[in-house]
Amino acid sequence: MVQANSNTINYFESVNKVLYEGKNSKNPLAFKYYNPEEVVGNKTMREQLRFSVAFWHTFTADGTDPFGAATMQRSWDKYDGMDLAKARVEAAFQLFEKLDVPFFAFHDRDIAPEGSSLKETNENLDIIVNMIKDYMKTSNVKLLWNTANMFTNPRFVHGAATSCNADVFAYAAAQVKKGLETAKELGAENYVFWGGREGYETLLNTNLKLELDNLARFMHMAVDYAKEIGFEGQFLIEPKPKEPTTHQYDTDAATTISFLRQYGLDQYFKLNLEANHATLAGHTFEHELRIARVQGFLGSVDANQGDSLLGWDTDEFPTDLYATTLAMYEILQNGGLGSGGLNFDAKVRRGSFEQEDLVYAHVAGMDAFARGLKVAHKLLEDRVFENIIDERYGSFKEGIGLEIVEGRANFHTLEQHALRNPNITNKSGRQEQLKAILNQYILEV
Amino acid sequence: MVQANSNTINYFESVNKVLYEGKNSKNPLAFKYYNPEEVVGNKTMREQLRFSVAFWHTFTADGTDPFGAATMQRSWDKYDGMDLAKARVEAAFQLFEKLDVPFFAFHDRDIAPEGSSLKETNENLDIIVNMIKDYMKTSNVKLLWNTANMFTNPRFVHGAATSCNADVFAYAAAQVKKGLETAKELGAENYVFWGGREGYETLLNTNLKLELDNLARFMHMAVDYAKEIGFEGQFLIEPKPKEPTTHQYDTDAATTISFLRQYGLDQYFKLNLEANHATLAGHTFEHELRIARVQGFLGSVDANQGDSLLGWDTDEFPTDLYATTLAMYEILQNGGLGSGGLNFDAKVRRGSFEQEDLVYAHVAGMDAFARGLKVAHKLLEDRVFENIIDERYGSFKEGIGLEIVEGRANFHTLEQHALRNPNITNKSGRQEQLKAILNQYILEV
Amino acid sequence: MVQANSNTINYFESVNKVLYEGKNSKNPLAFKYYNPEEVVGNKTMREQLRFSVAFWHTFTADGTDPFGAATMQRSWDKYDGMDLAKARVEAAFQLFEKLDVPFFAFHDRDIAPEGSSLKETNENLDIIVNMIKDYMKTSNVKLLWNTANMFTNPRFVHGAATSCNADVFAYAAAQVKKGLETAKELGAENYVFWGGREGYETLLNTNLKLELDNLARFMHMAVDYAKEIGFEGQFLIEPKPKEPTTHQYDTDAATTISFLRQYGLDQYFKLNLEANHATLAGHTFEHELRIARVQGFLGSVDANQGDSLLGWDTDEFPTDLYATTLAMYEILQNGGLGSGGLNFDAKVRRGSFEQEDLVYAHVAGMDAFARGLKVAHKLLEDRVFENIIDERYGSFKEGIGLEIVEGRANFHTLEQHALRNPNITNKSGRQEQLKAILNQYILEV
Amino acid sequence: MVQANSNTINYFESVNKVLYEGKNSKNPLAFKYYNPEEVVGNKTMREQLRFSVAFWHTFTADGTDPFGAATMQRSWDKYDGMDLAKARVEAAFQLFEKLDVPFFAFHDRDIAPEGSSLKETNENLDIIVNMIKDYMKTSNVKLLWNTANMFTNPRFVHGAATSCNADVFAYAAAQVKKGLETAKELGAENYVFWGGREGYETLLNTNLKLELDNLARFMHMAVDYAKEIGFEGQFLIEPKPKEPTTHQYDTDAATTISFLRQYGLDQYFKLNLEANHATLAGHTFEHELRIARVQGFLGSVDANQGDSLLGWDTDEFPTDLYATTLAMYEILQNGGLGSGGLNFDAKVRRGSFEQEDLVYAHVAGMDAFARGLKVAHKLLEDRVFENIIDERYGSFKEGIGLEIVEGRANFHTLEQHALRNPNITNKSGRQEQLKAILNQYILEV
Ligand SMILES: [Co+2]
Ligand SMILES: [Co+2]
Ligand SMILES: [Co+2]
Ligand SMILES: [Co+2]
Ligand SMILES: [Co+2]
Ligand SMILES: [Co+2]
Ligand SMILES: [Co+2]
Ligand SMILES: [Co+2]
Repeated sequence: MVQANSNTINYFESVNKVLYEGKNSKNPLAFKYYNPEEVVGNKTMREQLRFSVAFWHTFTADGTDPFGAATMQRSWDKYDGMDLAKARVEAAFQLFEKLDVPFFAFHDRDIAPEGSSLKETNENLDIIVNMIKDYMKTSNVKLLWNTANMFTNPRFVHGAATSCNADVFAYAAAQVKKGLETAKELGAENYVFWGGREGYETLLNTNLKLELDNLARFMHMAVDYAKEIGFEGQFLIEPKPKEPTTHQYDTDAATTISFLRQYGLDQYFKLNLEANHATLAGHTFEHELRIARVQGFLGSVDANQGDSLLGWDTDEFPTDLYATTLAMYEILQNGGLGSGGLNFDAKVRRGSFEQEDLVYAHVAGMDAFARGLKVAHKLLEDRVFENIIDERYGSFKEGIGLEIVEGRANFHTLEQHALRNPNITNKSGRQEQLKAILNQYILEV
Repeated sequence: MVQANSNTINYFESVNKVLYEGKNSKNPLAFKYYNPEEVVGNKTMREQLRFSVAFWHTFTADGTDPFGAATMQRSWDKYDGMDLAKARVEAAFQLFEKLDVPFFAFHDRDIAPEGSSLKETNENLDIIVNMIKDYMKTSNVKLLWNTANMFTNPRFVHGAATSCNADVFAYAAAQVKKGLETAKELGAENYVFWGGREGYETLLNTNLKLELDNLARFMHMAVDYAKEIGFEGQFLIEPKPKEPTTHQYDTDAATTISFLRQYGLDQYFKLNLEANHATLAGHTFEHELRIARVQGFLGSVDANQGDSLLGWDTDEFPTDLYATTLAMYEILQNGGLGSGGLNFDAKVRRGSFEQEDLVYAHVAGMDAFARGLKVAHKLLEDRVFENIIDERYGSFKEGIGLEIVEGRANFHTLEQHALRNPNITNKSGRQEQLKAILNQYILEV
Repeated sequence: MVQANSNTINYFESVNKVLYEGKNSKNPLAFKYYNPEEVVGNKTMREQLRFSVAFWHTFTADGTDPFGAATMQRSWDKYDGMDLAKARVEAAFQLFEKLDVPFFAFHDRDIAPEGSSLKETNENLDIIVNMIKDYMKTSNVKLLWNTANMFTNPRFVHGAATSCNADVFAYAAAQVKKGLETAKELGAENYVFWGGREGYETLLNTNLKLELDNLARFMHMAVDYAKEIGFEGQFLIEPKPKEPTTHQYDTDAATTISFLRQYGLDQYFKLNLEANHATLAGHTFEHELRIARVQGFLGSVDANQGDSLLGWDTDEFPTDLYATTLAMYEILQNGGLGSGGLNFDAKVRRGSFEQEDLVYAHVAGMDAFARGLKVAHKLLEDRVFENIIDERYGSFKEGIGLEIVEGRANFHTLEQHALRNPNITNKSGRQEQLKAILNQYILEV
Repeated sequence: MVQANSNTINYFESVNKVLYEGKNSKNPLAFKYYNPEEVVGNKTMREQLRFSVAFWHTFTADGTDPFGAATMQRSWDKYDGMDLAKARVEAAFQLFEKLDVPFFAFHDRDIAPEGSSLKETNENLDIIVNMIKDYMKTSNVKLLWNTANMFTNPRFVHGAATSCNADVFAYAAAQVKKGLETAKELGAENYVFWGGREGYETLLNTNLKLELDNLARFMHMAVDYAKEIGFEGQFLIEPKPKEPTTHQYDTDAATTISFLRQYGLDQYFKLNLEANHATLAGHTFEHELRIARVQGFLGSVDANQGDSLLGWDTDEFPTDLYATTLAMYEILQNGGLGSGGLNFDAKVRRGSFEQEDLVYAHVAGMDAFARGLKVAHKLLEDRVFENIIDERYGSFKEGIGLEIVEGRANFHTLEQHALRNPNITNKSGRQEQLKAILNQYILEV
């Protein structure tokens, strides 16, 4: 627990520690479904869900949008520069404690401001990393992952590892080098790459092949450096198809896995999958999780949601119970997320600008995922869909189906089978019934 | 040339052979830009463009849509059954000659009707394949590719190679076996797979892993059988993200390449890329071509266009000069399409139901691609974008950039470089100027 | 109740009357939430929900899609022509009884086949309308609405009331004339227009002004004829933005209301709003309902849902509890739907081809709306959002706000107010908290 | 012409006045198609096109995006506060002269910074307005329109005229009052409303009816005040469906016209239609122009373009020749834009950060519209589409068609006609041929 000393400001004075009060509570600052010590399956909810607070959205985002100025009211905003950076860390650990989350995550530039040179920037970072390290000693919260912000500064206007400018590649390398040192210093469980500027605006001025080759070179150097310094966290790539860049190379799970395999990086990386990035790529969240899971690349999750009628990344707090249920269904089948977690890469709406909204929003998201966990667990326990699927694909457990699966069939034997069996009988896929069952489980678990 | 005998009906009586009359012609049945014997680069336009007529849209499509019945008026529709099949082949070769296209393409079920059994179906096919073979003897037209329709018949309701029903897998295998035999018989330059039902409707009833494994097993068997019978055409997969199926496995170029690599199929397959499928996947046509090209997978093209405001595959005849120019730009840089071609996987609008519309539409598409070819060739000849790109990425040809490209840099040397070079200078990407140049080339070539 | 005579086939033999068994029932052929006689608010669920079965999707749809043939297995499909039409009516009334729905709806061409002339077509219709009338005498089911199918037949290829061909306009008029006579004969509570072909494919060949004027002329004639024959049901227009036509004139609620006002039709028409059409237009379902409600145009509802990742009208059975709750929230605030109802303009998936799927699907939809009704009723009873909104807009109940609302303010007085009040204080909109409350109500009602 | 005095900085030193050099010029700082004094139709190009530079994108935008900081390099950015405001005005008039554009447009907050109170803000505005007025005395450039920025400041977080807070409504009124005074002072030809925050984020906390009523009250007060002060410019509303707000009330042309009619505002307002807003609403640009034109609401145009694969307002400089041609086709048929113009509501890409890119971009847009003008003019002169449309709808000029149009038909006479004419003959809509003709006109005019 963080030691309050006489000088410490209580940044969330109006908020007590958020407790589980159960489904009938009317207290907006209590959990209705998230009961951290309740056992679901073989673990507690806390262990299953591994919630993480995103430093950027919650402690640095100010509510600007492309047409509007900052709206967020934050009690730490009376400070600036390094004082602001320190105040945010204080506020952060206070919120972590009130929510009792086990993890947090940050970009390098969230926690400390850039200085007038890379050297000074790194010194700023060192100060804050040391402060965080101190706080972590007396806190239960751990670092789920850190990452490098290589998209905000104008030097990255044409990309970082995929910039047309070798100086920018070098700068990005220096930044990730420091990021890996930070990760090791703070015991991060993972290190994430999100390539917001790794892509192109127009093919008319782009050497796509060189950019992809350079991206792979960069990743290999990161792997090498992690080995060198003994950082053993999991490397993760976070796919997103577009925004800010018109086309981003790490488009979706399948594309990113392809890149990793093409360049011999597949043994070193898994994916950090974000719900809103899935929908921007034209996929459901559960699709991306499934694609990654069946190929062994499901590493961690950015837990948020989009607005299917808007074409940009709204990064809303996740409240859709269908999405949280089907996400947890994949995660439970994956045997959990390993070193990953559910990181709330989510921001309060620009109109939800009061500081308490940060708490309401996390409560909303944590409750939605807690319910999703319980529903998914019960669905699996009852083998609701598993039994249906087993029966549906039963023809591959015997006869010609088994020959196919075991590699003993060929076009000759299959043609013979087809000629001998003129009447093929299919069975209904029962989609409507399955959706009704899902509703009943969501409502009645 | 097809021998007209006294019994032959002239299905396009009102249409003379379409000739090149140049850019000022007002004759709707003449080419304004496509001049087949004109040399562009090192080849004639005919050789560069390798146009192909799609049998399905042009000879069998009837104008039905999800809310409407057939509208198309086709002089061969007075026949039915095998007589209709024969009449369509006659009409097809007449149109090929009028348009003077070098290629055509078909699905098995386009050219011959299904019988009451697989055996009878194959017999129907044999009759028509023999008829086509005869026609080809006296015609200049070749078979660009054939494929198996494994999406229309209700037996494929849950997929073909990815069906939950092993009997369906076997039937599909028998169908592709026959398709490869047909390809060999007719000297097809390629064999295509489009997996319209290879995907899922809902994950709730789907064993995605088994389905993908089975799809790969199926492809390997096809490769084996082609070797066995000595079919040496190129195998192609045509990606599409959705429609008819909610999610299709061969989503886009990157996803399909990933699948091919994962299952050791990458040396046997290239891609057949369709413009409208690109846009449905959220990509430009030129993006898909570029992704395939730089990885060596650009095999052939389904030349059409979509409507960016509609969410389904409209398969319109290609008339957008930006798209035809940028497509030809990729194709020329690929050194052409090899055994592939530009297949008009395009249908006249339901309201363009008169038979002459088929000719107008092909003329529109061929002229648009001919112009695109000339513009793209001139852009490359003048090295308009090449010079810009060379300069733009110049930093990777010397110093630290060259070290990066040659594998001699690491995070230590790069950090040293970054610390020594505090001031990074980027240059404008000049997108607006490049677009103005592109306009000028399109208008003035 | 329909009298079974010795010759009557029991088309749903395997299905008993669907009964309410409550939320823990595992019987897929029982209601878990829809308890028709349970009183919610001042009415029974049956009265509140006014469910209607759509004849087209349930008794005539065969599962064809743009890439596939019919899959549906229907016990009445052994018949054809008028025998099939009669069998469908028998089957329909049997299903109505099993589901105990109070309403149904049809297009003219759903219930009887077209003959070789308009006269014969109308005679076919008369026979079936009389048969339906007989069935209705002993059934509890009423006709929610009928409509004219003016989109399937190729004569409507360029539109019906907006065709470029005056003969088609005349034909459409004759068809709607008959439709209004049918409506009167069967006591329809409403008459619906859905203009699937009323729009354009390309502006290049379209006289948009004349088409809109003609559409209005057509509607006025319909109103006149209804008065003439004494049909007193409510006229409804069903908006849809596109599909099958590229642009449809009745785009969405706002556009259609604009058309009605422009042409002096607003006193005669209300809207029939479909969930999937809302999403195709870029709106939520509840948005369309709200827009219509606050302007007095909310007439009836086509209860279905789309797939937000697909760009066409999937017409799925509604199971999304968020959508059913927020729809019922608007409907309850509208004081119900008046003569309208919740018509399942929804089709089972092509893979749900067994006849029982029709029952599963309706049960899924009815239960989802029943739950939505209860949640919405409780939300309103507790004034959850109403109290928040009252307080949020409180400033318009006093002072300068009241002056604004009462028309006593102007730019002078408002500027004075602004100059006097330099510090404007806004309050959080609390979106995240509201969504958490909505979740809790959905789960716990 | 602006008097250069010894102190005046030449902000575009490297750029000479942009001259027309014709289609073969390779000079990126010359017009290839825009020849201002060339007569097209009955006017010069300058008069037909009425180009306007948007102050915000060109003189204040800095290249920030939701994930990135400012990139734009602007020689006036060495100043700040009122000095910066003045420098921007100087730079603006210099650019206007180099481009020789006849108009410009601004938001109040573009030209002068907000002060610490409304009073001070207005004083800042007065200083700059006076400065602009002085510059206009010796310049040929006029004010196309001005508008009030009521979306950036956090006070407008919940809307301006549709805020839930009456104080905000009052503030907005004061701001528009000043805006109208500015418009009168500078002789603006129009006054624009774009309601970027006039809409809702979620219906859960929104009184939609009160908000719409208030919006109308606000517009009526503006009309009243304009009359009072004798401002005779045209009022315009600029529709946009979403972004920044989830749902915006002025969604598209049809919705906005409906609002104007509902609240008796239609005689006072026309529309300012933006290309990118059309596509965000699911419409083509030409659709929005046509809808407004045929109802008499086409007032002015925000000339830009979007990226159909991105879901947000990219506000790109317009280079698509199809869009510029079809836009000019509507505008010419409208008899021009009256007091409106073609305002480049367009920004250079974030990667086009050099100051010269501003010139390249305007040249690209002006050339694209100049070519569009010439193509559209020729299409109309040759009556290409007019003749086709006249013939296509010919049936409404005689017989039953004429009776329909003249109001002499009814359902009885139409039914009689339909019964007498069993065989309806439609003709092809010829879409493919029309698109080929359009291509030929674009290339060969
Ligand atoms: Co994320
Ligand atoms: Co995101
Ligand atoms: Co294709
Ligand atoms: Co297609
Ligand atoms: Co409907
Ligand atoms: Co629908
Ligand atoms: Co604009
Ligand atoms: Co815009």
